Amino acid sequence: MFYRINMADLSVKEEAGDQYQGLGGRALSSRIVAAEVDPTAHPLGAKNKLVFVTSLLSGTGAPNGGRMSLGAKSPLTEGIKESNVGGAMGMKLGRLGIRGIIVENLPAKDGSYVIQVSTSGVKLVNMPELKGLNIYDTVAKLQAAFGEKVAIGCIGTAGENRMAAACVGFTDMEGVPTRQAGRGGLGAVMGSKGIKAIVADDKGVMNITCVDVEAYRAGAKKLANALLAHPVTSQALPAYGTNVLVNILSEAGGIPTRNFTEGRFEGANDIGGETMAATIKERGGKVGHGCSPGCLIRCSQIYKDKKGEVLTGGFEYESVWSMGANIGVNNLDDIALMNRLCDDYGLDTIDVGVALGVLMDAGLFKAGDSKAAISLIEEIGKVSPLGRIIGAGAAVAGKVFGMRRVAVVKGQALPAYDPRAVKGQGVTYATTPMGADHTAGYAVATNILNVGGKLDPLSAEGQVALSRNLQIATAFIDSTGLCLFVAFAILDIAEGMEGIVEMCNARYGWNKSVDDYLEMGKQVLRDERQFNKMAGIAEGSDDLPDFFRSEKLPPHDVVFDIGKEELNKVFDF
Amino acid sequence: MFYRINMADLSVKEEAGDQYQGLGGRALSSRIVAAEVDPTAHPLGAKNKLVFVTSLLSGTGAPNGGRMSLGAKSPLTEGIKESNVGGAMGMKLGRLGIRGIIVENLPAKDGSYVIQVSTSGVKLVNMPELKGLNIYDTVAKLQAAFGEKVAIGCIGTAGENRMAAACVGFTDMEGVPTRQAGRGGLGAVMGSKGIKAIVADDKGVMNITCVDVEAYRAGAKKLANALLAHPVTSQALPAYGTNVLVNILSEAGGIPTRNFTEGRFEGANDIGGETMAATIKERGGKVGHGCSPGCLIRCSQIYKDKKGEVLTGGFEYESVWSMGANIGVNNLDDIALMNRLCDDYGLDTIDVGVALGVLMDAGLFKAGDSKAAISLIEEIGKVSPLGRIIGAGAAVAGKVFGMRRVAVVKGQALPAYDPRAVKGQGVTYATTPMGADHTAGYAVATNILNVGGKLDPLSAEGQVALSRNLQIATAFIDSTGLCLFVAFAILDIAEGMEGIVEMCNARYGWNKSVDDYLEMGKQVLRDERQFNKMAGIAEGSDDLPDFFRSEKLPPHDVVFDIGKEELNKVFDF
Repeated sequence: MFYRINMADLSVKEEAGDQYQGLGGRALSSRIVAAEVDPTAHPLGAKNKLVFVTSLLSGTGAPNGGRMSLGAKSPLTEGIKESNVGGAMGMKLGRLGIRGIIVENLPAKDGSYVIQVSTSGVKLVNMPELKGLNIYDTVAKLQAAFGEKVAIGCIGTAGENRMAAACVGFTDMEGVPTRQAGRGGLGAVMGSKGIKAIVADDKGVMNITCVDVEAYRAGAKKLANALLAHPVTSQALPAYGTNVLVNILSEAGGIPTRNFTEGRFEGANDIGGETMAATIKERGGKVGHGCSPGCLIRCSQIYKDKKGEVLTGGFEYESVWSMGANIGVNNLDDIALMNRLCDDYGLDTIDVGVALGVLMDAGLFKAGDSKAAISLIEEIGKVSPLGRIIGAGAAVAGKVFGMRRVAVVKGQALPAYDPRAVKGQGVTYATTPMGADHTAGYAVATNILNVGGKLDPLSAEGQVALSRNLQIATAFIDSTGLCLFVAFAILDIAEGMEGIVEMCNARYGWNKSVDDYLEMGKQVLRDERQFNKMAGIAEGSDDLPDFFRSEKLPPHDVVFDIGKEELNKVFDF
Repeated sequence: MFYRINMADLSVKEEAGDQYQGLGGRALSSRIVAAEVDPTAHPLGAKNKLVFVTSLLSGTGAPNGGRMSLGAKSPLTEGIKESNVGGAMGMKLGRLGIRGIIVENLPAKDGSYVIQVSTSGVKLVNMPELKGLNIYDTVAKLQAAFGEKVAIGCIGTAGENRMAAACVGFTDMEGVPTRQAGRGGLGAVMGSKGIKAIVADDKGVMNITCVDVEAYRAGAKKLANALLAHPVTSQALPAYGTNVLVNILSEAGGIPTRNFTEGRFEGANDIGGETMAATIKERGGKVGHGCSPGCLIRCSQIYKDKKGEVLTGGFEYESVWSMGANIGVNNLDDIALMNRLCDDYGLDTIDVGVALGVLMDAGLFKAGDSKAAISLIEEIGKVSPLGRIIGAGAAVAGKVFGMRRVAVVKGQALPAYDPRAVKGQGVTYATTPMGADHTAGYAVATNILNVGGKLDPLSAEGQVALSRNLQIATAFIDSTGLCLFVAFAILDIAEGMEGIVEMCNARYGWNKSVDDYLEMGKQVLRDERQFNKMAGIAEGSDDLPDFFRSEKLPPHDVVFDIGKEELNKVFDF
């Protein structure tokens, strides 16, 4: 079932959504935005829409199948945006039979509205007492009002103040808001529409529809077997989280250090996954924590401070990098505090961290001065002009400070893999319709981890084809609700992909082939690119900032050398 | 002769520039940028180039023929930019035989370089003592060093700090920096290259080449006759300056008031040209002041404060509007002070004023509070974070404050004619490759002033064709070095255009027709659009912000109703 919320008259209407049959997750979110949003609409205006959608497998409890998608025209990139998120919400919405909630228009009066989803359907409740609260406090108030077991997605200061790097924070299975629909500023779109939170309670749901339960179970088993067999998903990620990558990338010379001036960080070991895991264990936190129902990988964790108080969780490699190596900081506790502040204000840690790197170069603080970096993040919470600059993301920070070394594509900051030393990743950054996004085609797998084959990360050879294939497959995976990390397993173990196909087919009574599903992925990319083109974002923007082509990255002294014409071939399919 | 300055090694080389034969002004500047600058280059990086070029008639003393062009990839729009300027420089460079000065690369060391042009050629001089000075002080020091009679173009705080709305200030015939190459942030490009100023001394130049002096003189006479006969150029502009438009546009319901919420300003008469002229006369200033050699229109002025001290000059309608009606201010002295501050720091008054309107809506000050607005402009001089936001222009200010009513196209602020009430102007804003720019196709002439015919400003009918014709003709006029205001005369008096054609032909020994020159105009637009496309700016960006299509403008309660497909037809030629 679809629900359409019109903020102008605060009405909620049910719809069958026949035009969106057969779609889920990113395929659904991007189709709705492409079909219903005027590409030239202001991202914060009445004509933009914010969509919350479930995925093809949502609600089934499929292995690592708990993710859902948010979509809108992005205030950060000014293009189409899909941002997917783990945590408890996707499962609950799926069990409640929700396929999509489409939020339209702007409220006539200021308010702090909560979308309440339950077996009674979807309601809009104004809770002015939530206004001005950050995410942890908002979650506490909502749990007090609606019970401990609800799933919550909400915005903090950043989203309320329509900052372009604002995220939407979601609760995990313990009700702690450690998961984020992080990228592209969808929290600002939510804030512009006066929506403070979405709350889902699946109490009373007995079971969900599945056309062929036995076939579904057989498929699920195949995927589970693959996940439990592959060393990345069964060993590295559970033991050290995504932060296992700090030492690996530093060793490979591909961790962008001090605003993309070096590829190896001398403090890598101080902030890497091994140190993090040891610190967590010593302080009684938790590693191997699953963020969403059905998770078999369990790469999340609960990180406590020196006094044993919970400080943060879902403490990812990207965040440790952006507020660590990227600004020369090797103090894990200070990075954890920055992560907590970003999660609480409701900010994308990647864009904030890259913005900090730009301000460091502008002379606002010295590399390694984590206390100064913390103070700058606190400016965001104060909503000061300087805080607003950082909260608007790296591209705007670069423009305001007149800086030329600003690692962004289509207005979105580059994540934690230097495109000169991990070239397949560079192709993805340059070309994905999302703006620089590692998850859109995670070439690190094959470039660095030797998953899905082996391809020299320093060579231009083969990277366009690699990124193309990954972007297509990812657009499909992001439509299923499966965590992208299943890709590690399915790239190496054929049974895994079979299981995914079987689960999707069994749930809906389809008879689709792998090629059919990949065609879904291709169509997602076509929808997204067409939207961007009509929004005024031309092919010429499919490129990296020019300094990646002219400045050599130590230690390998490499530049990004894949030509623009080559990049344009990514979408030859 | 062309000169190529390489800031990386501080070398200056002469070139014949055969590939640029037959071009001048905007045609030359845009061709150089399109041919030599990588469209994906960072505007503040080594790969951008800053060009200073003379125009087809520069140095001849043609009636109102004193303008020259600056060009680069714009840090404001991220597209191609040509910004032309009056004052004394164009004439002197023309007399010195300069066709273009192309500044490349970035300096290895911090410096404050002056491009010194004389009969000895072009030299680069480092004058660190100029660092940190604003424009009036810079001009004083340069006059002390090089003499009172030199022409000067320089940047202030804004350009040195690479603010995206930074202009380049130029001296008028009295050596006062009242003229600006205002739009598109070329002052920031100059600052990024370490260039503080350009100084030209034409001492020792006897005369310049002209193939057929008699024919040239006959053509000049025809244009002069037209200028002296037309009521706009011979009466309205000399008496009241461009500011004559405040009352006219307010009467027409087309002066954007309080950030484009109304089209009529109750304080119009307090700040309009009639009041300004009376105030100037009362205080012993000057109206009917010519900004550049050969000017027959003389729309500039010298504005004194209450004590009789010179406060500002070149006090244009656009500036009076942006820091007046646009923020509800009706105090002319306060607007004059804001104009002086912008001229001194080196800022485009349009983008700064529109940014102020956005901050007013964001709650930073109340409409009409001119003291608060002055304080905000002073923040730019202090280079504070808030000042940097304003100095980055309206689009960035809107993004940083999360505002949705932001009147910009392609990142550049809309000038002083509401596109809903002057629809031909709206077509020009939406489609010119420059970003919102009234001068690129000044439909006000025909929509409001009934020059070149009559076309109802409130009707969509015929506006696309009007804007198309004006954009083509303007691209040619901007290539001649003629002030755009000659258009008023030549649109109504055929002899005027004949005179222009005859002057250009006579100077170079050409035998070109009007159509040949209009083809030059078309080619300019093709060059510029191709650059933008390769820079990632697609056709979809040829539109107005969506609020102009949804919010009715009082008093006529009109919206902008020219469809996107219609807008795309502007370039069908």
